[in-house]
Amino acid sequence: MISMKILNYMDVEPKEVGKDASGVKMRWLISKEMGANNFAMRFIEIEPEGFSPLHDHPWEHEIFVLEGEGLTTGGKDEKKIKEGDCLFIPPNETHQTRNNGIKTLKLLCMIPYEKTK
Amino acid sequence: MISMKILNYMDVEPKEVGKDASGVKMRWLISKEMGANNFAMRFIEIEPEGFSPLHDHPWEHEIFVLEGEGLTTGGKDEKKIKEGDCLFIPPNETHQTRNNGIKTLKLLCMIPYEKTK
Repeated sequence: MISMKILNYMDVEPKEVGKDASGVKMRWLISKEMGANNFAMRFIEIEPEGFSPLHDHPWEHEIFVLEGEGLTTGGKDEKKIKEGDCLFIPPNETHQTRNNGIKTLKLLCMIPYEKTK
Repeated sequence: MISMKILNYMDVEPKEVGKDASGVKMRWLISKEMGANNFAMRFIEIEPEGFSPLHDHPWEHEIFVLEGEGLTTGGKDEKKIKEGDCLFIPPNETHQTRNNGIKTLKLLCMIPYEKTK
């Protein structure tokens, strides 16, 4: 018997990401409610000209770019990101992702539930 | 200044997965060596007719299917997987993934470093 969970990202309702973001929707694909106690998987879509907030927090991001292109900034500096790129953003580092392309930027973003190092 | 790490999956050397697997290559995209202390991100390619070993271990998998299609089995039962699907395989559950399609099956597979529940 299989107790694993399988679902398609399109079966999960996208939710608007709150203030200080623009044109960003998030789907929580795998989370604690499913039994994932160590880390969560979220599917994020950023519209052209959209952006996540410039923010920091005491946990890391592990990101994989599924489609599109954009810029990730840590304040003044910025780096291009595109399909097939992965990003490791360490805890407490200020970051923001913007879509400067013409297609929706689609990302997988994993975060730990255990925030301690 | 940005200290985050950005790389493309194609810049990471694929390595053959050991015995009991067939036609499977893995690239470790994000790991402890990069500072990721909570969980790792691996990019896995399974050739048509290839398969991962039927195995179990005391940690979970979080998987996202990037391209292709295949079957995931827990022994007798099996379920179809395809692009855009995500899988949560709980700790200690026997599992195997096979590519029964005509394209390379490409997966992202995340595993925790902390193996305890």
